[in-house]
Amino acid sequence: MNKSIILNSRPDGLPTKENFLLKTGKIPKIVEGEILLKALYVSVDPYIRGRMNDVKSYVPPFEVGKPMQSVVVAEVVESKNKSYSVGTHLTGMLEWKKYQVSSGVGLFPISADLAPLSSYLGVLGVTGLTAYFGLLEIGKPKEGETLVVSGAAGAVGITVSEIGKIKGCRVVGIAGSDEKTKQLKDKFKLDEAINYKKTENMAKAIKEACPKGVDIYFDNVGGVVSDGVILNANNFCRIPVCGAISQYNDKSFTLGPRINPIIISRRVRLQGFIVFDYASKYLEAQMKLAEWIKAGKVSIEETIIEGFENIPEAFLGLFDGKNIGKMIVKI
Amino acid sequence: MNKSIILNSRPDGLPTKENFLLKTGKIPKIVEGEILLKALYVSVDPYIRGRMNDVKSYVPPFEVGKPMQSVVVAEVVESKNKSYSVGTHLTGMLEWKKYQVSSGVGLFPISADLAPLSSYLGVLGVTGLTAYFGLLEIGKPKEGETLVVSGAAGAVGITVSEIGKIKGCRVVGIAGSDEKTKQLKDKFKLDEAINYKKTENMAKAIKEACPKGVDIYFDNVGGVVSDGVILNANNFCRIPVCGAISQYNDKSFTLGPRINPIIISRRVRLQGFIVFDYASKYLEAQMKLAEWIKAGKVSIEETIIEGFENIPEAFLGLFDGKNIGKMIVKI
Repeated sequence: MNKSIILNSRPDGLPTKENFLLKTGKIPKIVEGEILLKALYVSVDPYIRGRMNDVKSYVPPFEVGKPMQSVVVAEVVESKNKSYSVGTHLTGMLEWKKYQVSSGVGLFPISADLAPLSSYLGVLGVTGLTAYFGLLEIGKPKEGETLVVSGAAGAVGITVSEIGKIKGCRVVGIAGSDEKTKQLKDKFKLDEAINYKKTENMAKAIKEACPKGVDIYFDNVGGVVSDGVILNANNFCRIPVCGAISQYNDKSFTLGPRINPIIISRRVRLQGFIVFDYASKYLEAQMKLAEWIKAGKVSIEETIIEGFENIPEAFLGLFDGKNIGKMIVKI
Repeated sequence: MNKSIILNSRPDGLPTKENFLLKTGKIPKIVEGEILLKALYVSVDPYIRGRMNDVKSYVPPFEVGKPMQSVVVAEVVESKNKSYSVGTHLTGMLEWKKYQVSSGVGLFPISADLAPLSSYLGVLGVTGLTAYFGLLEIGKPKEGETLVVSGAAGAVGITVSEIGKIKGCRVVGIAGSDEKTKQLKDKFKLDEAINYKKTENMAKAIKEACPKGVDIYFDNVGGVVSDGVILNANNFCRIPVCGAISQYNDKSFTLGPRINPIIISRRVRLQGFIVFDYASKYLEAQMKLAEWIKAGKVSIEETIIEGFENIPEAFLGLFDGKNIGKMIVKI
């Protein structure tokens, strides 16, 4: 029997289980040129929240009544396409379906021999590449500089922090629980970690953790956490603006301080980016990341939830900060 | 008799005449190695407002009871320094004094044969160089792109707009009176000009004036005008953040919309800058600007107020939008 998860209604603020609907049906049949895919791992990511709104962005919105999508690792279980043999593993943007038909277009073959299949959704996939390009192409870390990372215990944040250490930075992470800050320091060797939920004055906490000021701020969250960091920006501070999870459920723009006087006087550069813009350099980055993983300098850190039915719950868990590292659903 | 203008008190919000005090005294005597300078033209600029606060920035604050400073064009009227002969014209950061003593250090010789002396305070000085580097180094205009300039009738704004036209952009200016918008279109050949004081919905006005969206936004003002422009940002929009005159008199950060979701999805780059960071390229830029002035492509546009006593009034006039082009006081 096939299963799929469709967008049942658009969320009004924070998404709920009621926005999703589990549907069952028959396993589809394939025709000449097609392959049948069985989902093995499904990625859930904060950016998915944006596509649930009826707003044009860099990707079109999901349609109500149609299946949700994200990056999936799947196995070819039936093939009428000579390019793909049964047992091949592929990854790419796919629907939240246990079984689905594809022509293979837009999917990439991956190998379990090189790295665990799930890691293609994390450190060798979108989140690892996002960390790699955001930090190296926009942040441009130099030895001895101070790097602050918000959402530091998330999938992107951990990899950013680890690459920051490789590049010789003092790395300060911000996360939302004592368990997370402990792991950031003990397991991932960050120099300091701040639990923002227990911090009343973020500007002061950053000042203490960064006695030489902030040279790079990798921003995954936006909002008041970022305000506190930016007040400590050094001259020529670079801010790769990667995510704004604190704002994704807002119905309109919330208000924050107008920081232009700081941007000017300290020559701050804020730059938004999307990993897809660096697609031509993916392979090069994946090889570098694989090398760092092998050397034990970059971790494969995953929170794995089991069961197709639990995809919505895993996604909703992102907004409660339930994951350390990449949140993945194993089917 | 000598005259000087000192900082009498720090402004609380918008500066007033009472923050300044005119003092009289004797014309100073010089000793070996010194020169006596007579001020000819004094520059008043929005950034001076920042130095009136007791806040460390890229330049130290003015001291209460001490003379104000800005860039001045002066003539050597007496010399006991072999490097400077009487009649030489010099420019640089000097005090608001009719006569003052200098060693010449930090001052640059200028020639009235090359360009009018006052233009070294404007288009060949800080404002022209600010326009040049902000637009070309950060904005990076390409033929056919749309450039929006706020504070477009100010000294920086006019030069930015004219360089934008030279580079083949569609240029849309924002200014604060119908007289200014008329001049921007008729005299400076901008494609469109918007009077923000008569515009209720800036986002809509920009959308109408920029049917292809905004590729570069040269921001001199900050605040709600900028909010409306940024909502129309195209993908990969560049925003040189040059000034925030709408915010300079605020006592703390005012609130504005948190635009991170736009920065991310449209890959916007906001970058603050200060012209002094480009000092090594000044000469190259001045030669290019002089060439454009000669070709009639860049204007020397000045609002000249006469009389040493009127320096504070000229400065205060900047916040009322009284100037078109560079505001200069002729002594």
